[in-house]
Amino acid sequence: MDKLTVIKVGGKIVEDEATLSQLLSDFSAIDGAKVLVHGGGRSATKIAAQLGIESTMIGGRRVTDAEMLKVVTMVYGGLVNKNIVARLQACGINALGLTGADMNVMLSHKRPLKKVKMDDGTEQMVDFGFVGDVDKCDGKMLATLIGEGIVPVMAPLTHDKQGNLLNTNADTIAGETAKALAPYFDVTLIYSFEHAGVLRDPEDESSLIEHITADTFEQYKADGTVSGGMIPKIENALEAISNGVKQVIITKSDAIDGNHGTVIE
Amino acid sequence: MDKLTVIKVGGKIVEDEATLSQLLSDFSAIDGAKVLVHGGGRSATKIAAQLGIESTMIGGRRVTDAEMLKVVTMVYGGLVNKNIVARLQACGINALGLTGADMNVMLSHKRPLKKVKMDDGTEQMVDFGFVGDVDKCDGKMLATLIGEGIVPVMAPLTHDKQGNLLNTNADTIAGETAKALAPYFDVTLIYSFEHAGVLRDPEDESSLIEHITADTFEQYKADGTVSGGMIPKIENALEAISNGVKQVIITKSDAIDGNHGTVIE
Repeated sequence: MDKLTVIKVGGKIVEDEATLSQLLSDFSAIDGAKVLVHGGGRSATKIAAQLGIESTMIGGRRVTDAEMLKVVTMVYGGLVNKNIVARLQACGINALGLTGADMNVMLSHKRPLKKVKMDDGTEQMVDFGFVGDVDKCDGKMLATLIGEGIVPVMAPLTHDKQGNLLNTNADTIAGETAKALAPYFDVTLIYSFEHAGVLRDPEDESSLIEHITADTFEQYKADGTVSGGMIPKIENALEAISNGVKQVIITKSDAIDGNHGTVIE
Repeated sequence: MDKLTVIKVGGKIVEDEATLSQLLSDFSAIDGAKVLVHGGGRSATKIAAQLGIESTMIGGRRVTDAEMLKVVTMVYGGLVNKNIVARLQACGINALGLTGADMNVMLSHKRPLKKVKMDDGTEQMVDFGFVGDVDKCDGKMLATLIGEGIVPVMAPLTHDKQGNLLNTNADTIAGETAKALAPYFDVTLIYSFEHAGVLRDPEDESSLIEHITADTFEQYKADGTVSGGMIPKIENALEAISNGVKQVIITKSDAIDGNHGTVIE
């Protein structure tokens, strides 16, 4: 099977001209078939504030009400996505910007009410609004497009096929895309973020763990080498592996060539 | 050849929930292959004003500066386009939202400086900013997608393949799309607007001219039956016909079934 790389980059990277230019140049240099998944970043919050729309946070998490959904549709689906597409075209990459609604590529359902621990210690059932939990990604359609030389650029928006767009976590979109493409390609999934990879010491970028498997992950968890927010990230990576993705790499956003970071397989 | 309908609707129609619902229902009912091209409308101006961005007008026409380009990218490429796509998916239409940058579907160049007559009667060379004059539409790529059962939904944005998106007239996008698809389909191009079609008396909706050809157009122009803004509209229609489009229909936005309005062929 041909090789395919799915790269997820955070919104912060695509918002800043210097880091965006670097990313587009690095992404263009990657050999073979590829998919770019971008996050939303802070522009949505900033533009919402300028429009007089308040971001409601409950238990530290954003609620996507109808007004905020309009803003993320504009910013993620329009401003961020289409600028990346136009810039990639200038690099000779035949990019196609997609939300999950386009060609019904990523179907989701509105997240049900969730029990959330509040600041005062009580628990409350919270409606996070127009947020999507992914049900299905159409890997066959994406594989057909990719076979035509097209490079999908995916925004963190899905739909419920009832006419509603839904704000969706970009890590999830990248993971679901990688899994859906696994029957058609040898898929490497690269999650880029602000660190060099999974670190033994979060303060020391040179303390990189180069390789993690399901077995070593259990040891790292047991002895405390890996903790906090890295645990769900690695669990997601292992879940992708068990669904056919060949390897997952967690790396810094300026080192997405597949030769840096922590390899999970 | 199979039949294909390209329908252009103005921004005003897609901004209002009642007219949008009607449009989506009418569009869904059209048999055969189809493409929807939407205008931008006033939401961009409204959102720009809320963001403190002033719309610069010169000689009655809008200038798209860098800030306004961001707004139209958000509103046309994101908010309007993706909502139409999600709503069409709910109607069982496999819609795909596109700007000209996506898959390099519509290439344009930044409009050169134009001589414009100012209010005081003087002439001035005006830079309209990030506005695109279309060079090329990739009909082959669109025909391939349409052959897969996909319904393109096109936003009034193109790109210059140098990394810039360009604000582009939706009538032009519809015309170029229709012409580019003419080698692959029997194309009907429908321009919807606020009147029943080309009228003998602009005040009387029942004074519809049912049929116009290149010959009768010359007569209508000579005897004053057709005048003002309708002349360039009909000229564009006749230009599409001479480039292989089978018929052009100018009709009211709630009568896009192909059986109403003025037929130009």
